[in-house]
Amino acid sequence: MKYVYSFKEGNAKMRDVLGGKGANLCEMISIGLPVPMGFVVSTEVCKLYYENNLSLSDEVVNQIEENILALEKTTGKKFGDKTNPLLVSVRSGARSSMPGMMDTILNLGLNDEIVNSLSEKMDPRFIYDCYRRFISMYSDVVRGFNKDEFEKILEKTKCDKNIKYDYELTKDDLKDLVSKFKNKYKELANEEFPSDPKVQLFEAIKAVFRSWNNERAIFYRKMNNIPDEWGTAVNVQEMVYGNLNEKSGTGVVFSRNPATGENKLYGEYLMNAQGEDVVAGVRTPKGIETLKEVMPDCYDELVKICNLLEKHYLDMQDMEFTIENGKLYMLQTRNGKRTGKAAVKIAVDLKNEGLIDEKEAILRVSENDIDTLLHPMFDESDLKNKEFVCSGLAASPGAGCGKVYFSAEDVKKAYENGEKDIILARLETSPEDIEGMNMARAVITVRGGMTSHAAVVARGMGTPCVSGCESLKIDDEKHEIAYDGGVIKEGEYVSVDGTNGKVYLGKTKTEEASISGDFEEFMSYVDNTKKLGVRANADNYRDAKRALELGAEGIGLCRTEHMFFDEERIFSFRKMILASDIKAREKALNEILPYQKDDFVKLFEVMNGFPVVIRFLDPPLHEFLPKEESEIEKLALDLNVSVSDLTNKIKQLKEFNPMMGHRGCRLAITYPEIAKMQTKAIIEAAMDAKKKGIDVHPEIMVPLVGEVKELKYLKEIIKDTAKETLNGEKLDFMIGTMIEVPRGAVLADEIAKEAEFFSFGTNDLTQMTFGYSRDDAGKFLNDYINKGILKSNPFEKLDINGVGKLVKEAAVKGRSINKNIELGVCGEQGADPDSIKFLSSANINYVSCSPYRIPIAKLAAAKAEIDKN
Amino acid sequence: MKYVYSFKEGNAKMRDVLGGKGANLCEMISIGLPVPMGFVVSTEVCKLYYENNLSLSDEVVNQIEENILALEKTTGKKFGDKTNPLLVSVRSGARSSMPGMMDTILNLGLNDEIVNSLSEKMDPRFIYDCYRRFISMYSDVVRGFNKDEFEKILEKTKCDKNIKYDYELTKDDLKDLVSKFKNKYKELANEEFPSDPKVQLFEAIKAVFRSWNNERAIFYRKMNNIPDEWGTAVNVQEMVYGNLNEKSGTGVVFSRNPATGENKLYGEYLMNAQGEDVVAGVRTPKGIETLKEVMPDCYDELVKICNLLEKHYLDMQDMEFTIENGKLYMLQTRNGKRTGKAAVKIAVDLKNEGLIDEKEAILRVSENDIDTLLHPMFDESDLKNKEFVCSGLAASPGAGCGKVYFSAEDVKKAYENGEKDIILARLETSPEDIEGMNMARAVITVRGGMTSHAAVVARGMGTPCVSGCESLKIDDEKHEIAYDGGVIKEGEYVSVDGTNGKVYLGKTKTEEASISGDFEEFMSYVDNTKKLGVRANADNYRDAKRALELGAEGIGLCRTEHMFFDEERIFSFRKMILASDIKAREKALNEILPYQKDDFVKLFEVMNGFPVVIRFLDPPLHEFLPKEESEIEKLALDLNVSVSDLTNKIKQLKEFNPMMGHRGCRLAITYPEIAKMQTKAIIEAAMDAKKKGIDVHPEIMVPLVGEVKELKYLKEIIKDTAKETLNGEKLDFMIGTMIEVPRGAVLADEIAKEAEFFSFGTNDLTQMTFGYSRDDAGKFLNDYINKGILKSNPFEKLDINGVGKLVKEAAVKGRSINKNIELGVCGEQGADPDSIKFLSSANINYVSCSPYRIPIAKLAAAKAEIDKN
Repeated sequence: MKYVYSFKEGNAKMRDVLGGKGANLCEMISIGLPVPMGFVVSTEVCKLYYENNLSLSDEVVNQIEENILALEKTTGKKFGDKTNPLLVSVRSGARSSMPGMMDTILNLGLNDEIVNSLSEKMDPRFIYDCYRRFISMYSDVVRGFNKDEFEKILEKTKCDKNIKYDYELTKDDLKDLVSKFKNKYKELANEEFPSDPKVQLFEAIKAVFRSWNNERAIFYRKMNNIPDEWGTAVNVQEMVYGNLNEKSGTGVVFSRNPATGENKLYGEYLMNAQGEDVVAGVRTPKGIETLKEVMPDCYDELVKICNLLEKHYLDMQDMEFTIENGKLYMLQTRNGKRTGKAAVKIAVDLKNEGLIDEKEAILRVSENDIDTLLHPMFDESDLKNKEFVCSGLAASPGAGCGKVYFSAEDVKKAYENGEKDIILARLETSPEDIEGMNMARAVITVRGGMTSHAAVVARGMGTPCVSGCESLKIDDEKHEIAYDGGVIKEGEYVSVDGTNGKVYLGKTKTEEASISGDFEEFMSYVDNTKKLGVRANADNYRDAKRALELGAEGIGLCRTEHMFFDEERIFSFRKMILASDIKAREKALNEILPYQKDDFVKLFEVMNGFPVVIRFLDPPLHEFLPKEESEIEKLALDLNVSVSDLTNKIKQLKEFNPMMGHRGCRLAITYPEIAKMQTKAIIEAAMDAKKKGIDVHPEIMVPLVGEVKELKYLKEIIKDTAKETLNGEKLDFMIGTMIEVPRGAVLADEIAKEAEFFSFGTNDLTQMTFGYSRDDAGKFLNDYINKGILKSNPFEKLDINGVGKLVKEAAVKGRSINKNIELGVCGEQGADPDSIKFLSSANINYVSCSPYRIPIAKLAAAKAEIDKN
Repeated sequence: MKYVYSFKEGNAKMRDVLGGKGANLCEMISIGLPVPMGFVVSTEVCKLYYENNLSLSDEVVNQIEENILALEKTTGKKFGDKTNPLLVSVRSGARSSMPGMMDTILNLGLNDEIVNSLSEKMDPRFIYDCYRRFISMYSDVVRGFNKDEFEKILEKTKCDKNIKYDYELTKDDLKDLVSKFKNKYKELANEEFPSDPKVQLFEAIKAVFRSWNNERAIFYRKMNNIPDEWGTAVNVQEMVYGNLNEKSGTGVVFSRNPATGENKLYGEYLMNAQGEDVVAGVRTPKGIETLKEVMPDCYDELVKICNLLEKHYLDMQDMEFTIENGKLYMLQTRNGKRTGKAAVKIAVDLKNEGLIDEKEAILRVSENDIDTLLHPMFDESDLKNKEFVCSGLAASPGAGCGKVYFSAEDVKKAYENGEKDIILARLETSPEDIEGMNMARAVITVRGGMTSHAAVVARGMGTPCVSGCESLKIDDEKHEIAYDGGVIKEGEYVSVDGTNGKVYLGKTKTEEASISGDFEEFMSYVDNTKKLGVRANADNYRDAKRALELGAEGIGLCRTEHMFFDEERIFSFRKMILASDIKAREKALNEILPYQKDDFVKLFEVMNGFPVVIRFLDPPLHEFLPKEESEIEKLALDLNVSVSDLTNKIKQLKEFNPMMGHRGCRLAITYPEIAKMQTKAIIEAAMDAKKKGIDVHPEIMVPLVGEVKELKYLKEIIKDTAKETLNGEKLDFMIGTMIEVPRGAVLADEIAKEAEFFSFGTNDLTQMTFGYSRDDAGKFLNDYINKGILKSNPFEKLDINGVGKLVKEAAVKGRSINKNIELGVCGEQGADPDSIKFLSSANINYVSCSPYRIPIAKLAAAKAEIDKN
């Protein structure tokens, strides 16, 4: 088995074995670039190291020794040689970049003898400085001694000498520090600092392997879905010194601007400095363009290498270089991280430059990149001055600031008084708050997770939202919020960053999102590639229009109940709910009919040529009734009934578990007149639109079906009502069902006998398959994820193992009965890339998601398609 | 195709074709009993009649005509013959007895000519009476004219003549009535009354077919699970007349006493009367034994026939007979309906008489029979005098009366003041009410279905309960209930019949249930036959003991949370819930530990040698916290925290859908210290019991598992804690899980890798598979059943199609990984016979149900076993 690779033996394709950094170092060597020589201990060794109780096998040790010999030969230097010592860096490098998460040791190979000898030939200040840095790094990384122990000694020396900066230390100061550092080491380790470079090296390699499992690396992997079993490689490389003299330096350079994507070299450097100094921020680095004057040859060579590497990797490169005494060395290259905006511009530019094709361009842009393009953001520099209020969940992305109000009603009043910049802050939201949420620039809630009512609705509206701000205490009576640090009163300005889940005090400058030409071009690549349909969840004209602008191919879910919250409508709707007999109910429904119809006409007009899936009334009726005593009193007055009768009726409608209560098709089965009214509204609207020349494709969707007879019963009502409404005229429309109750999935073959389409409601299906109420699951989901019981929140990422299995099997069952059945997914996970990949493989026809997530879903769909081939 | 059968052509096995009555008439003919001759129009014709738009095919008509000819030949009488007319009865008779649900016409074949002619030869009073009865029956049954039209004429005549009873009418009165009835018919029908006996006959046959679908027949079938498609047969039989003269009579006789089972002829008769007269109750029938003196020959013949029929059918017979002018005719025999007590006695007696074997004996007793034996009942005669208050759902069988109270607290106070006869009436119950429910003789709730909290808990306790009494209005403040008819104040007596779902005013005599020797013997047959295990759901010593007495083979579900409601315990438990850190929580748990341990020791002692399945804490914690302000204030005082802090904490724990919230294993995962305490209590208790010589078989059950990692995580905690607790000592115990979340069923193969047993929690599995909250589903389940969308309440009868499919597949998946895995079911449906039959076929090892339902479950299990062979 080969465990250790010389830089000459590897290439860029060997990331899995060599890690990203190692593979790219090899690749640069192979195309002849100036890279200090070295070797890579493979990721395989990392795995073995853990399997063998944190030890290296003889075979691995032998291969490392052979590579040391080879490296000595190549460099003409020798480990431990007094006059020409080999000094190396030992760096981690995993398959996927984990910047700063693991450990590095520089200047390895030094000992007293070498340092004494070198200090006579070279700048002794430089050589002692290298040595003291090595001792403290080694102590920290290999032995795990607290860095502060060494920092304290350094600080004391500076204090005694009354100096501020490290570079003010003299040669003797540094020599003294070396000796103090070594004593400290001895004190902590109970042994001398190891002088044998080989001992140093093997200990350093093992320490880097161990750093794969330090806390921050584990956390980073969890955050970035990097498997624990990958392991890191270790790169052992000859040292070069940017801090050797005034003809030396070090820097970072990008082949294009990572912020804007502009095709122009971008970077910075420091002369007479090591990488650490750039990071420390003591001296301000200079723009890369100034290097042209300082070291014109090096600059020209760097530009040439940058161009070459970009063409070689066919992507924007992020490179590290060091100039040692006038000679340029490349220390790293990798595909550069970039902003969403830059990602799109670079992908489109590279495609237009002929370097990559459309599919490659698609793969260069992540769904997160697209996400950032779709929401307004705070101006970072302005944000720096704001007082931080609290963190919560980044429930709906985007930034918004305005005056804070504590009820939907107060928001409405302020809005009607001409106030446009409004923030709604609530303990939690309920469907009654929708109008207020719609008027607000952003929403804050104290309770509720990523899939709470506030989060779901806000994402649907594209309103920024931070949910679960548990440190806030809202006092509805005093109209104020208490936070750790003070109190915010009604009407004060707050800034809500839904992208990062943070709330600040005051007004912050906001940058509006814009869909640039590059973005448009990029989306055309996506549309050319993807096969999965992407529709929008949209309940009104405005959302539908926005969805269409963002590329929706129809409406996959129109929640008719959202049409009832207008003040003029809610009264009729409440009359309907509280009707004591069918006549009164029908009368109230007749008042609602024209509104619904009108809304549907507008939807059909916007979605000309595209399908529009309209779902029958879904939530339990009590959600539409007032909760506050004063509201109940008002309603009683309006309805001309006694407050106690009304209170009683409301009590009767109350449910223990509304999620599993009298809702969905159960409502229409108890009150067929609701189904009749909604059918009539849809059919009349479609006919009106059709007469205006609109190409209408209505799909009538029955929610919460768990038994085919439910669908059969309602289908007959829909068909009869449609026939009566059409009165001989012709209209094509479909009747289908949501599959969102586990029983519906289990019996999908039976249900397919009556359904022209299924729309998998993966929100409710997830709730019921797991038995998790999404409004309550916040109480334990974090624990579940932290304890490794779940990998992710199943309301955000489809649970492929369980819920996904039901969906896939139901799809197969449905198609076995009706091979042309249309299959869609309208849950929140409909825009999640992993979920889309799975759904695409399950042969789902379309997903439906919030308008703002449509480009994201499309991109994921295109990638899923590329992935298939 | 043969559609019509002479009585000589059929036998008892042909029930499906001939209906029960027809098949038995044929059978009696075939064994030579005196039965008036006739023929049967088969059930097949009924189906065809409906398929052919309510008409009879030519073939059927021909076969009927042939049978009329044959009947004329056999009887020597002729349809329409003036001197020797054939008169027949036309009666319904379905495969399964539907007493009184369908229509009958007697005396068919009469017309003016025949009546005039007969009135010269026979008692004219008798013949006119027959004729007027025929006209009104025909009008009612064939034409659907309201009976009252004819009753009014009769009443007017009686009024005019100033007489009270029909038999006081003279020949002329009756002749006059005939003429008035015929005029009324003409007026209503717009045509003359048909005089042709064949026309009469065909119309009557069709009318009987139509009566299969009258409202009460449809309702009866729904109640008794009789398929709509069976149809009825029609029996056409020569009339015999018990009212011909003083040597005639009619009666009903049982071969054994249907109330007690005593092996002694039982019945009653009336001389000079028709069947109608017995029913009308105008004259009081005499005991059958007196017939011996009145007509000794007939009596002896009847006794002989009764014995013969019982031996022939191997079951107690219910027979109708008529004596016409001294000659005995048998008109019907069927297996007699009987009380539960009689059913058991008859089955055991028949077995001991050597007529049937154990298996036959088992099949002779229904689960309902057993049910009635297990609960106290009201004395029927005493109940007659009570004022009816309301009907509700028969949620938990048995009868109880006492003084009514409106809160668990008031019940407790009364109980502590020495009051033992207490009724608890609540809007609905919650876990806090358990203690009060336990002290009450019966429970009434206004809201909630058959599977509401009150119903489930009451059934578990064996406390009678009537739930869903929606007509009641409880006024908690005034401490009174308003019902349709008055107001009941706190402390007044009410009588609650949970077997029939009725509530009465006042105190009613109650008969206690007793397990007689016959019952014990019968259960030994059951135990010899059944294979399915039957365990009890029992949470305390008392229930466990009762369960053992009733034949439980272990405890299948001990809900540990029910152990926390004692006053001294709930405080520690609340401290645990409200603990702000793990230390405080552990401290509170340590206070609970000795109680739990003590409870478990007792359970093990009672269940010596049997398994005891103990479930970890399951309900959401907020269920244990007080809801009333005053209670919260008290708790705050006890806990030494501020009321507002406590209120806040309680608010935070509140859930939107507690059923799907922070409960089950989710609690133990968030708070592993709870799992540790419960494990410790179980293991310590088992060791203590073991040391006393008890044979202990603890099974530790983790609830609500949907993901194998949940079980894995907790299993480690259980194992570690057990190891620590055992401290080197040995104890066999099992660790398993409930399968009650759909995901758990879908992924049962994965979960089986970590589980030694599964217990299917079909209550929750039904809730989540359907998406029905059982506390709320009452709002639509009735509609669903009435509209034919569901056949039955899936919380009472397992939904074999959907939930059952998940159970069956999960069982197969579980066994595929671990072929010895123990599979149980502990949902409410565990005692439902149909569900047991299904579960038995799915190779489940045991069911677990309320103690009171154990004998029922065992019987169903035995029948399922017999059914397999």
